[in-house]
Amino acid sequence: MSILYGNAVVGQSGGPTAAINATLAGVIRGYLDKDSHGGAIGTLYGMRNGVEGLLREDLVDLGAIFAKDEDITRLEHTPAAALGSCRKKLPKMDEEGGEEVYARLLEIFKKYNIRYFFYIGGNDSMDTVAKLSEYTKGHEYEMRIIGVPKTIDNDLVGTDHTPGFPSAAKYIAVTMQEIIRDCAVYTTKAVTIVEIMGRDSGWLTTASAIGRVVNGVAPDYVYLPERTFSMEQFFADVRAALEKHPNVVIAVSEGVRFADGRYVCEGIGVESTDAFGHKQLSGTGKALELAVKAEIGCKVRSIELNLPQRCAAHIASVQDLTESVSVGRAAVKAAAEGLSREMMLILRGEGEEYSFTIGHSDVSEIANKIKVVDDKFINEAGNDVTDDCCRYLLPLIAGEASPKFIQGIPDYVVI
Amino acid sequence: MSILYGNAVVGQSGGPTAAINATLAGVIRGYLDKDSHGGAIGTLYGMRNGVEGLLREDLVDLGAIFAKDEDITRLEHTPAAALGSCRKKLPKMDEEGGEEVYARLLEIFKKYNIRYFFYIGGNDSMDTVAKLSEYTKGHEYEMRIIGVPKTIDNDLVGTDHTPGFPSAAKYIAVTMQEIIRDCAVYTTKAVTIVEIMGRDSGWLTTASAIGRVVNGVAPDYVYLPERTFSMEQFFADVRAALEKHPNVVIAVSEGVRFADGRYVCEGIGVESTDAFGHKQLSGTGKALELAVKAEIGCKVRSIELNLPQRCAAHIASVQDLTESVSVGRAAVKAAAEGLSREMMLILRGEGEEYSFTIGHSDVSEIANKIKVVDDKFINEAGNDVTDDCCRYLLPLIAGEASPKFIQGIPDYVVI
Repeated sequence: MSILYGNAVVGQSGGPTAAINATLAGVIRGYLDKDSHGGAIGTLYGMRNGVEGLLREDLVDLGAIFAKDEDITRLEHTPAAALGSCRKKLPKMDEEGGEEVYARLLEIFKKYNIRYFFYIGGNDSMDTVAKLSEYTKGHEYEMRIIGVPKTIDNDLVGTDHTPGFPSAAKYIAVTMQEIIRDCAVYTTKAVTIVEIMGRDSGWLTTASAIGRVVNGVAPDYVYLPERTFSMEQFFADVRAALEKHPNVVIAVSEGVRFADGRYVCEGIGVESTDAFGHKQLSGTGKALELAVKAEIGCKVRSIELNLPQRCAAHIASVQDLTESVSVGRAAVKAAAEGLSREMMLILRGEGEEYSFTIGHSDVSEIANKIKVVDDKFINEAGNDVTDDCCRYLLPLIAGEASPKFIQGIPDYVVI
Repeated sequence: MSILYGNAVVGQSGGPTAAINATLAGVIRGYLDKDSHGGAIGTLYGMRNGVEGLLREDLVDLGAIFAKDEDITRLEHTPAAALGSCRKKLPKMDEEGGEEVYARLLEIFKKYNIRYFFYIGGNDSMDTVAKLSEYTKGHEYEMRIIGVPKTIDNDLVGTDHTPGFPSAAKYIAVTMQEIIRDCAVYTTKAVTIVEIMGRDSGWLTTASAIGRVVNGVAPDYVYLPERTFSMEQFFADVRAALEKHPNVVIAVSEGVRFADGRYVCEGIGVESTDAFGHKQLSGTGKALELAVKAEIGCKVRSIELNLPQRCAAHIASVQDLTESVSVGRAAVKAAAEGLSREMMLILRGEGEEYSFTIGHSDVSEIANKIKVVDDKFINEAGNDVTDDCCRYLLPLIAGEASPKFIQGIPDYVVI
């Protein structure tokens, strides 16, 4: 394949993670390493706020901004999305206004001589990559379009796991160790319900139990959206646990549903009414808290781990940051070598000791699909994960990131 | 003063913190250092679950459990209360059953030849220390009774700050840096309300702004219980901030109240109703979230930082752990030298550079009082903290604790 000379653009899209900037740093490192692309890429642009910013030509010169290696290292440790993000999905070509958007994008690519397009994101972002791939196929302006995965939800198919997930998993695993110990100090019966992100897949919630295979400390039960939630079973579980010890800790995915398909927070019928008469559903944890209070009557509290799950870069997984950088670098190299219309993947090596390689696969086969937790990782009763699951996750959370701190405050990058 | 030979007992009481075990470690280190007490203390007992456990003679031999230095170091990094805790307040002597409880305690002290009593806790615990001090004064069985402060709320008088507060403050300061960056990635208008612990004093909430004097990143507004909360002013503040940038982040103490004395969560009238018809107040953050949604109509979310504020030992302040150990050690030394019926204090040195010494003061003058945030630390409008406040707090969060991790999971002590 002949060398395709031109400029490149990279964007970040969808929900932020603690590692999406590490992937951006990987793309920058790949670009700065001229050997990795044979000097094919002239300028590396960053688009602000994903395709939203690209459409208004809001571009920055990343090579100029990240001329110093220490700044790239800082970027690797910075949470959220340094370039900004967006939730914009490109329209279908045959939708109204669709043709216009793509024509405008092509115009911008030509104007800036952009031949390489790297898009770091999750499911919706891969949809954008797939559509743009499809569109540019039909044009003589040659482009290499690559999707680079990230999502804390770990729900992309094809890849062993997604960059960003291990750091979120580590935050959850560590925080559960701390919460369980905190809850254990009193002798009065109490139930603590920890609500974890993940509407369609329970991967993040599985992480709450990882510690069990290391030191035996884990929640009493783990409820995932992969299994139907039964209120009866849940109350029976809580009662059984309270028989064993006074302090019961439960991890539950925000996405658990009853047999009739309703989310638990809908199905229990807990709702909030404000002074203006508006009603609004409470979260899953809160709904279960009120249910346990009413049914069992002991002390109950719920904790929503919330945003820190995806932005707690101070306790990011070193393994995750390493892989996230690698996948970004690999994307640049692969594109220069001719790859296009593919998403990069992390492949897990065979053998006892954990290892990974970077692969790729057709992005159109990845977009808009959901990878749920494997059956073998969920116990028979559907109220816990298996030790196999914990052992599968364990190597992903290896190593504690060490962002630089200045006067006790993390020194994160601002672009 | 003659040497008082005998055994010692130490207990932990009230809400756990990330540093209360560091203080326990300090007491153990002080005990193991025979020179510091002239060999006066024979055995150091730990009471499980504070005075609750003491009353049922649930004692452990801490010298035997912590024979290895590395185990004491692990203890220093372990969150929650390794001995367990309780919420029990001793009755007044003239209350029904009061005399009995104290007689029982004295009996236990005599049985185990306990002459030294160290109690690590907050306001309620100092009340216990004060009452026990008062009772034992009238008996010929000589005892030395010392209160050792801890509370994330930082609301004890007499001491510059309380052990445990700096680590909670660090968690809040670091997490706010991460949340603010996470919230900044989108271009659509959104308000994020972060609810922080502290019913009576706003110290923990002030910590949300510390970063401002380091890198300029801080919440748009900070609302403390030290100032009356006005819904009108709040809406005006939010609107003004939304004019300036799309992503508004607000820190609010759970304890803010309206002019009529009602908590904001009561006053707005947001309540939850479960399927059984029970009503329950939502949190302050949730109440304000619903209010902003109804009044302003933009995207709003609320985050309750919850338990991790007091148990996130993985990001504890090194300064806090150092001081917490020191105050525990100092308690042993001071008691051996004759001090009794006092609470240990942390005193801030004069001069530009931060320094501290350990002092003490009459515990009966400390119990049941509340130290609120100084006027000079709150801005005139009552919706933010001053830079002076941030600079006051900054040295307390210096240094990042480095608990040992095994396979990515923190290696915390279990007694």
